[in-house]
Amino acid sequence: MDPEKLKAEVKRRLPEGRFRHVLRVADTAVEMAVRFGADPEDARTAALLHDVAKAMPKEELRELVLSEGDPAGVLGFHHELWHAPAGAIIAEREFGISGGAVLDAIRFHTTGRAGMGVLEQIIYVADMTEPGRDFPGAEELRQESLQSLSGGLTACSAHTIRYLAGKRAQIHPETLACYNDSLHRKDMNS
Amino acid sequence: MDPEKLKAEVKRRLPEGRFRHVLRVADTAVEMAVRFGADPEDARTAALLHDVAKAMPKEELRELVLSEGDPAGVLGFHHELWHAPAGAIIAEREFGISGGAVLDAIRFHTTGRAGMGVLEQIIYVADMTEPGRDFPGAEELRQESLQSLSGGLTACSAHTIRYLAGKRAQIHPETLACYNDSLHRKDMNS
Repeated sequence: MDPEKLKAEVKRRLPEGRFRHVLRVADTAVEMAVRFGADPEDARTAALLHDVAKAMPKEELRELVLSEGDPAGVLGFHHELWHAPAGAIIAEREFGISGGAVLDAIRFHTTGRAGMGVLEQIIYVADMTEPGRDFPGAEELRQESLQSLSGGLTACSAHTIRYLAGKRAQIHPETLACYNDSLHRKDMNS
Repeated sequence: MDPEKLKAEVKRRLPEGRFRHVLRVADTAVEMAVRFGADPEDARTAALLHDVAKAMPKEELRELVLSEGDPAGVLGFHHELWHAPAGAIIAEREFGISGGAVLDAIRFHTTGRAGMGVLEQIIYVADMTEPGRDFPGAEELRQESLQSLSGGLTACSAHTIRYLAGKRAQIHPETLACYNDSLHRKDMNS
């Protein structure tokens, strides 16, 4: 789909602030794709669609995720995670996206998982490090993500794990798997 | 086994500082058993034996764990975790301990796991909160453990997860499972 048409359709589905976040993730993801060797157009498409389901009511998200059997097992965890697999379903059904890598990048952008491909890693990291992110530690995540993709992945997943454990919230097992896996990648690269 | 004989045999296997830690864990575990409804003698036995393999060489620990097939999957993680399942094997083979709850409390005291019994939780928490522990945050863990066992379990597992993620070290999946499970327990109790 033409990026401008895609943007217009995503804009229609999201509040203004969320849409601006999506545009910043797209810019960040395209830069990262050039730097780390992924297809920039796939990165743009995945980024533009990663939050496409974000503004949907909880019950609709649940139904969408259940319609494919919840293979990632998000429904037992905080509903903040549900829009990712729901977004992949919408990207496929309503936007006709058929590239598995783009769909996986959308599907796993909240939980992460072990064995993420380059595009998945880029969307996961870009979502947390786009220039509008200003939570404590965001700048360190941006710096680590400039150095290496696996380093950015470690930094972002470690941040999420520490944040959730600090507020005594459930942590998805795939987020831990993503974190542990990112450390193995660094071991292999070092 | 008579507690004094047990102490003498454990003392023989450990450096002095470690043995004193073991005695403090035993006192803490017995108090917790009285407070939270576990058998105090089982708590003492499990506590006295929890670090029985702590001073063994890494290669001997690996062989011991492998002799039972490493069902807890510790060998792919930091060797600091290995003395727990190795200790359970020694408790059974060399000390004749046959109580499953005591052996499980020793076996899972480093990683934790989902679905821990009361005695397992007590040893896991007592090990981190005995009065000699003075790492940053130890006092908060002690306070939370006095309030409730599931609260202590959450606090201790969250502390471990945050500590390991902060130093970019691998985290065992069962430690996360223990943490998530402890939150469910609190939900059920509240």
